[in-house]
Amino acid sequence: MMKDGKDVSKRKDNYSNTGKKVKKAINRDMNQRQILKPGNMLYPLPVVMVSCGRPGEKPNIITIAWTGTVCSDPPMLSISVRPERYSYEIIRETGEFVVNLVNKDLTFAVDYCGVKSGRDVDKFQQMKLTPLPSRKIAAPGIRESPASLECQTVQMLHLGSHDMFLAKIVAVTAEGRYFDEKGKFHLNSCGLINYSHGEYFAMGTKLGSFGYSVRKRI
Amino acid sequence: MMKDGKDVSKRKDNYSNTGKKVKKAINRDMNQRQILKPGNMLYPLPVVMVSCGRPGEKPNIITIAWTGTVCSDPPMLSISVRPERYSYEIIRETGEFVVNLVNKDLTFAVDYCGVKSGRDVDKFQQMKLTPLPSRKIAAPGIRESPASLECQTVQMLHLGSHDMFLAKIVAVTAEGRYFDEKGKFHLNSCGLINYSHGEYFAMGTKLGSFGYSVRKRI
Repeated sequence: MMKDGKDVSKRKDNYSNTGKKVKKAINRDMNQRQILKPGNMLYPLPVVMVSCGRPGEKPNIITIAWTGTVCSDPPMLSISVRPERYSYEIIRETGEFVVNLVNKDLTFAVDYCGVKSGRDVDKFQQMKLTPLPSRKIAAPGIRESPASLECQTVQMLHLGSHDMFLAKIVAVTAEGRYFDEKGKFHLNSCGLINYSHGEYFAMGTKLGSFGYSVRKRI
Repeated sequence: MMKDGKDVSKRKDNYSNTGKKVKKAINRDMNQRQILKPGNMLYPLPVVMVSCGRPGEKPNIITIAWTGTVCSDPPMLSISVRPERYSYEIIRETGEFVVNLVNKDLTFAVDYCGVKSGRDVDKFQQMKLTPLPSRKIAAPGIRESPASLECQTVQMLHLGSHDMFLAKIVAVTAEGRYFDEKGKFHLNSCGLINYSHGEYFAMGTKLGSFGYSVRKRI
């Protein structure tokens, strides 16, 4: 597994000694790069409940971690969906969906909406969630979500296992409880969660704010 | 700001009363959706140090939060970069870059590499980081990063303020210290950080693992 043959031989030499030298050698070993199979290792990722719907049908929710912001102006994001998923045809046909951010209280629902299919269950009903009328699109949001981003697809790309929907964010609503008296929205007080390598995590301690490295002496 | 005229009038009625009724009314008010300007509100996002380089020049690092996984098979990710950034031309010309995951120890460097330009400083040198020879591409990774994803661009899209580079992950290396004795890599032990609405955060408590909602009774 070791990349550098030279270091491996060095390590062997040191292993025949004792005490500090061995410890040093083990540390060097531990710092070595090991090779992994090329795969999706970009983490932690956001995890969101994407809601969608066709007129006259029950709306649906699909949990998505293959999502990201792709442009600031115009504000755009992407979601990637497997063609075999129930929501895929709905999103493809309507060109619309809502990205609903998820806090701790919604962790169970986010997992459920990621493993169950809208073909078999009514996810809104099962998870006791409320469809939220959208402002700019027909697809509903989720009232229990701290913030809902209404999206209109502008392009679809076939990539392989997943198709990517590139979309403009055309409207945003958020829960009133996260606004202060001056009308400022406090997104980082929503208790948002993320997804990393098969597990859901709460957000931890704040480590800094953008630009702090140049605001103080290096 | 209120969306629902009916609820607003209800609230007014309740405000003229006292005690529990008022409290209930305020709670309902707090739960109301408020409208925000359509913008990038998808958070928390990953934050990574993207390294790149042209032969014969110093390598560079650009911090990117506009990134995400876009396909499982083949494993693909995207990064979005403003054309005016120093790294933009390097990535466009070479079609290569390395996505380096970031842990707490690298928070200062990740911020610095997001606000400083490679036109003015040598970021590897300034942040005491070490270029890591890649396995499959010419662009170097960062040795201090817990995991480095070597990427080859397959498509570039002009979106507006940002261009999106769609790329295949062609090789992955990770720090030896995060592998157990069976050779399993523990990504969630790396202390990865994320970026949310202008702030960097450590990962918090684990809330569940994928599929837990259907493994126990609902």
